Amino acid sequence: MFNISRNRLVDLMQEQAGIGATSEDGLHRLALSEEDREVRDWFAERMNKAGLVTRVDEFGNMFGRREGRDPDADPVLLGSHLDTQPNGGIYDGALGVISALEFILSLNENDLKTKRPIEIVNWTNEEGSRFQPAMQGSGVWAGKHDIENEFNKTDTDGNVFEEELDRIGYKGNIAAEPKEEYKAYLELHVEQGPYLEGAGADVGVVTGIVGFSWGEMTFTGQPDHSGPTPMNYRSDALVAAADIITQIRRIPGTLGERTVGTVGYIEAKPNSINIIPGEVTITWGFRDPSDKIVQKAYESIIDEAQHVAAREGVDVECAETMRAPSVDFAEPCINAVQTAADKLGYDSVRLISGAGHDATHLASVTDTSMVFAVSRDGKSHSPEEYTSWDDCYNAANTLANAAFELANK
Amino acid sequence: MFNISRNRLVDLMQEQAGIGATSEDGLHRLALSEEDREVRDWFAERMNKAGLVTRVDEFGNMFGRREGRDPDADPVLLGSHLDTQPNGGIYDGALGVISALEFILSLNENDLKTKRPIEIVNWTNEEGSRFQPAMQGSGVWAGKHDIENEFNKTDTDGNVFEEELDRIGYKGNIAAEPKEEYKAYLELHVEQGPYLEGAGADVGVVTGIVGFSWGEMTFTGQPDHSGPTPMNYRSDALVAAADIITQIRRIPGTLGERTVGTVGYIEAKPNSINIIPGEVTITWGFRDPSDKIVQKAYESIIDEAQHVAAREGVDVECAETMRAPSVDFAEPCINAVQTAADKLGYDSVRLISGAGHDATHLASVTDTSMVFAVSRDGKSHSPEEYTSWDDCYNAANTLANAAFELANK
Repeated sequence: MFNISRNRLVDLMQEQAGIGATSEDGLHRLALSEEDREVRDWFAERMNKAGLVTRVDEFGNMFGRREGRDPDADPVLLGSHLDTQPNGGIYDGALGVISALEFILSLNENDLKTKRPIEIVNWTNEEGSRFQPAMQGSGVWAGKHDIENEFNKTDTDGNVFEEELDRIGYKGNIAAEPKEEYKAYLELHVEQGPYLEGAGADVGVVTGIVGFSWGEMTFTGQPDHSGPTPMNYRSDALVAAADIITQIRRIPGTLGERTVGTVGYIEAKPNSINIIPGEVTITWGFRDPSDKIVQKAYESIIDEAQHVAAREGVDVECAETMRAPSVDFAEPCINAVQTAADKLGYDSVRLISGAGHDATHLASVTDTSMVFAVSRDGKSHSPEEYTSWDDCYNAANTLANAAFELANK
Repeated sequence: MFNISRNRLVDLMQEQAGIGATSEDGLHRLALSEEDREVRDWFAERMNKAGLVTRVDEFGNMFGRREGRDPDADPVLLGSHLDTQPNGGIYDGALGVISALEFILSLNENDLKTKRPIEIVNWTNEEGSRFQPAMQGSGVWAGKHDIENEFNKTDTDGNVFEEELDRIGYKGNIAAEPKEEYKAYLELHVEQGPYLEGAGADVGVVTGIVGFSWGEMTFTGQPDHSGPTPMNYRSDALVAAADIITQIRRIPGTLGERTVGTVGYIEAKPNSINIIPGEVTITWGFRDPSDKIVQKAYESIIDEAQHVAAREGVDVECAETMRAPSVDFAEPCINAVQTAADKLGYDSVRLISGAGHDATHLASVTDTSMVFAVSRDGKSHSPEEYTSWDDCYNAANTLANAAFELANK
């Protein structure tokens, strides 16, 4: 076992937190923005200084490679993402990339060789807030998305992904795909949930990722004047949508312990105090470790949509926009993380991630697991996101030792 | 009794419908827009041609006066508004102004003198969609609003009311206030509701206007990540808002036959599929002919807001933004309208207006009543708004004969 440098980890985290910093001590570093360019330049320089051989693929994914004793051995890959949500926090994604870099710096400092090459990576656009979908760079790299399709995606201002990637100087010349077999992928991320804190744990050993169903439904009623239209003449699209929202609050409790259901987005038209809403669109999201339960939740909401629409005399159209099966991580990787945590004397909890991560896609390419750092109050995607430096250190140390073990296997 | 010219009424209606016409045969003629200037120029020319002495007050209200045999007698005032909702219909407001003009033209044509002077009026900004509040011009004229305050109102692009009024050339030099006593105010308007059509009536005799409570409530919860946050850790502002919306659908049915309740506006933040809504603002609107019932509805919703907020663990702030007492029109005016309809052989229905009109403010200045024209399917504020030419004629003829009677009393 060996320990990384806590001070250097903190310094690196604070440096990156200065790029795109908001007045509330958060980060606003959207994918392919000027701030993204700046943090990429900073990270490239840091990788070069660390002696890594760097490359950028055509989708902007940034890699740095440290050769092992056996250059033909399958490498171990570590990383996460440096982009953030609008007005997000400083840990989400960045802690995983910085911890991977700090692992390399610790190896260098202690003059430690590994049998296998080690690569670290910053995946393009994990957040999916400026360009959809989330986990876009790792998804393209893992062959889940057609690259031309993703290149043509636009943000709400009409900017095209490929042009923006080129503009910030990160459209590389090599194909966005694995060019060799990998031994393993490990990703450190903040939990973004309350389980570790609730259990008083030092670190989380992640055994998989929940599956989910995302979709959109639009209710169409009659946009009448709110004064002279009697209640029994109304087809109120917002009342129907509200009815569904209360159902989505109810359904998870009828299914599983870990089931969650959310309506995050709503848009009403014409959205005027004096007009009965004629058209309302909402999204849904259900997640559960069991794909069967996700399916049940999906069926429930489609069924409820029909009842709700009939009750209010409106039309409804539903479309599932994304379905992701749950992911089971690989035992050798889970074990490496568990062993590292145990040997370091950390209290650990095994848990399933409630959020998607780049590791979702990597799990289809190579053996994968994740390390979770404790999130205070489970908060993320906001400036209130917080992980103590002790908890950052615990997780980064766990990652480093697990990777070291895998890289010498 | 005498009859107005059906053909001329239709021609005038079609002429005005050409100013600000939309591709869907509706009208987009927002207050103080270029289209408003154009229709005002057209109306001014029409009033001049009809021999009326015209004047524009400092708030843009346009008047035309036809002297009576007794120039000292209190005049009878007739009118409505020429502005429309965004993408509205061609009847709302315009039919009332055009019918008043057609009454003058019929008097001229038949060489009919009245005892009292007759004035017709186009009130500025009745709709309240570009600048708030609705019924702004008549409200200022009736002394309900401070004119300087209204002059400083801005639209969503930051344009200032007074500058826009000046820009279109309709900031007059005379005070926006009644300069003499009036005998009566009559306003013809489309019903915008389904009662007349439902009863198979030719015309509506309006006895008053419902009172209302308008307000806004904001729920503040926690904007957490929708994946890893368990259901029991959530404070979902949208779930609370949805709960209230279903209550507002329920409450009217517990109160009165004519009670209506609506949430027309909703805004959720951050409004992203993957984030639990942290802040949601909705509006409410309750209307009823009884002020006591409006007060009960208001109390119910404030009370429900507390329960809903407690259930979901969110904060709530409520503010009533407007309360208007119900208006009872004056018996002499109601009777004049009823008598005219009866003598013309029209089937009429007496009803209370569910929408506010300029007549709301006028009722505090002089004896007031309204004539309602049949609305197909109760639709208004959209290109689907429709009143047959027969129904336009019936209502305009009723207005003319009621005004003629009052002007000779």
